[in-house]
Amino acid sequence: MTRFRLTIEYDGRPFVGWQRQANGLAVQEAIETAIERLSGERVTVHGAGRTDAGVHALGQVAHFDLDRAFNVDRIRDGLNAHLRPQPISILEAVPVDPGFDARHSATGRCYRYRILNRGAPPALETGRVWHIRTPLDADAMADAATVLVGHHDFTSFRSTFCQAASPVKTLDALRVERKGEEIRLVAEARSFLHNQVRILTGTLKLVGEGKWTKADVEAALAACDRTKGGATAPPDGLYLVAVRY
Amino acid sequence: MTRFRLTIEYDGRPFVGWQRQANGLAVQEAIETAIERLSGERVTVHGAGRTDAGVHALGQVAHFDLDRAFNVDRIRDGLNAHLRPQPISILEAVPVDPGFDARHSATGRCYRYRILNRGAPPALETGRVWHIRTPLDADAMADAATVLVGHHDFTSFRSTFCQAASPVKTLDALRVERKGEEIRLVAEARSFLHNQVRILTGTLKLVGEGKWTKADVEAALAACDRTKGGATAPPDGLYLVAVRY
Repeated sequence: MTRFRLTIEYDGRPFVGWQRQANGLAVQEAIETAIERLSGERVTVHGAGRTDAGVHALGQVAHFDLDRAFNVDRIRDGLNAHLRPQPISILEAVPVDPGFDARHSATGRCYRYRILNRGAPPALETGRVWHIRTPLDADAMADAATVLVGHHDFTSFRSTFCQAASPVKTLDALRVERKGEEIRLVAEARSFLHNQVRILTGTLKLVGEGKWTKADVEAALAACDRTKGGATAPPDGLYLVAVRY
Repeated sequence: MTRFRLTIEYDGRPFVGWQRQANGLAVQEAIETAIERLSGERVTVHGAGRTDAGVHALGQVAHFDLDRAFNVDRIRDGLNAHLRPQPISILEAVPVDPGFDARHSATGRCYRYRILNRGAPPALETGRVWHIRTPLDADAMADAATVLVGHHDFTSFRSTFCQAASPVKTLDALRVERKGEEIRLVAEARSFLHNQVRILTGTLKLVGEGKWTKADVEAALAACDRTKGGATAPPDGLYLVAVRY
């Protein structure tokens, strides 16, 4: 048996998310099908992050096992050939130690959220950014973000469907930067709760609009009550950028 | 009569190009239809650059005239509403002097060409970059580009269907830069010949691959013969970035 680690880029729009579901095609399933066509083996692909429907990845990581020997050099290009024309690209496919687990061995995950902040809607970035017409104060958002960094109970900022045993997580970084018409949030943590980055984004948007202050964000965090956090930002602007091991 | 100047972003993939044609929908036509729906007037929209099928724009400029008075503030948003769901976005719509002509008043045009230079195909940028697997030497491309800058007969680098009266143009700038996996060419001139940026890109690609030297590019330029220039790069990676007045 050989275990392989994949690094994967995908456009989340046509998929029901990373994880296999009854209601449509999942990224996981598309890759499993490509592996079967290439190798003849029916495998399960385990991903580092379960991105939701419409969420994109620049560097998702996953692992799977093949029983029979296989030409390692052919895997990346072979899978990409079988994945066409789906918007999934295997950036790297390498054999790894059988002890490697894409999800459990991860020591850090980095997400990016892109907001297009201008009057006109996107033509080239439809489905890949959150379009907000109201001018946002990115500096105020960046300042308010600092109260969220650290070890906290994030109940106010996780989906009510979140299945994690504990709402307590350590958010290592949450930066907000404006580059022209685009505002980018970058969030880093060992792991995230369900919808956490999207709810943090939806909350900081209120600060950017001037509807909330930094103190309001602090109060929402302290409340440990989902109804006190901001709305969940749409999946369009979210990217799983990288997974650290 | 009021003349309006539009600044326009579009994804070129679903269109036959900027200019109205019999074989499919043109960007020009889509905008003219939106203007008619908004204002009730049938107009002609004149663009600064006639982008080909599949070529994108971040800042195409165009003008048109309306006979009747119209609430200027409503034009941008009204046109965008009528353009949906087509990937065309009006970034700005402002009244201008009736002497303004989007094409003839232009004093400079800036194009960008994006090459994705990595083994794996694009998942998020399909149709928006030229995917080249062979590692390219961007420094060699940048160096060879310098011989093309200036006042030259560009016969070797224009489409054989080019209708310009003269093949002599002044190329003000041609820069090549690598940013990670992406190589970007930036070309600036008062005006360009048909397919000029794409042929210049296809030629510099040969230098990046090590198949041509800077001297080969110089010889191709001097030959004034289209068969001596490189192949025409695909439209996917080309963007009309801005028009200067």
